[in-house]
Amino acid sequence: MSEELLPQPDTGEIQLVKVLHALGDPVRIQLLGIYADGEEHSCDPRVLGLERLHKSTVSHHMRVLREAGITSTRAAGRNRYVRLRRADLDARFPGLLDSLLGSLASGGTGEDVPPAA
Amino acid sequence: MSEELLPQPDTGEIQLVKVLHALGDPVRIQLLGIYADGEEHSCDPRVLGLERLHKSTVSHHMRVLREAGITSTRAAGRNRYVRLRRADLDARFPGLLDSLLGSLASGGTGEDVPPAA
Repeated sequence: MSEELLPQPDTGEIQLVKVLHALGDPVRIQLLGIYADGEEHSCDPRVLGLERLHKSTVSHHMRVLREAGITSTRAAGRNRYVRLRRADLDARFPGLLDSLLGSLASGGTGEDVPPAA
Repeated sequence: MSEELLPQPDTGEIQLVKVLHALGDPVRIQLLGIYADGEEHSCDPRVLGLERLHKSTVSHHMRVLREAGITSTRAAGRNRYVRLRRADLDARFPGLLDSLLGSLASGGTGEDVPPAA
């Protein structure tokens, strides 16, 4: 089975304004909470607790996160696996990710955000 | 001269996703850098180094920042004065503002952001 990493910005090209734009959305900030565990996650909306969304909508959100430099997406056959770029984000913007995750944990989204799986 | 504080969310009502959405814009993240000094700033686009924008566009950005809970706007006659809600943001999301300002200083916006005045 062929595998490939989908296109993503290099660490030095990650822009703050794009990171904030990507995370300034209720679904994508919820995904950040899921990805906070550092593990790879399937893009299956059911697995992510996003059954209410169409698969194409979830794919759109995945793409925004990837293009902002927040996540890496690995393609394996027809499947996609997403992981947080924690080391890259910490290198680019020291302390930002931890403070975002801490703020998320404090319930500031106005949505029911599940804890990091 | 009458003065009033324009409507803004209480500290406990400030939502992370709205803060990130508000700052996920090149102009508004630039404004955050200007307001980082904690002082009141006029909304005059020339004073803010935003001559390229129409006054109504600047007003729109001011409103988004205020409604997200990032800034307070004081109206005095026909003038508006904007200030960062640092204490409120620090209380709501400890460490977030400092990490955002630090990230901004590291040049992650992809724009020429002037240093805090």
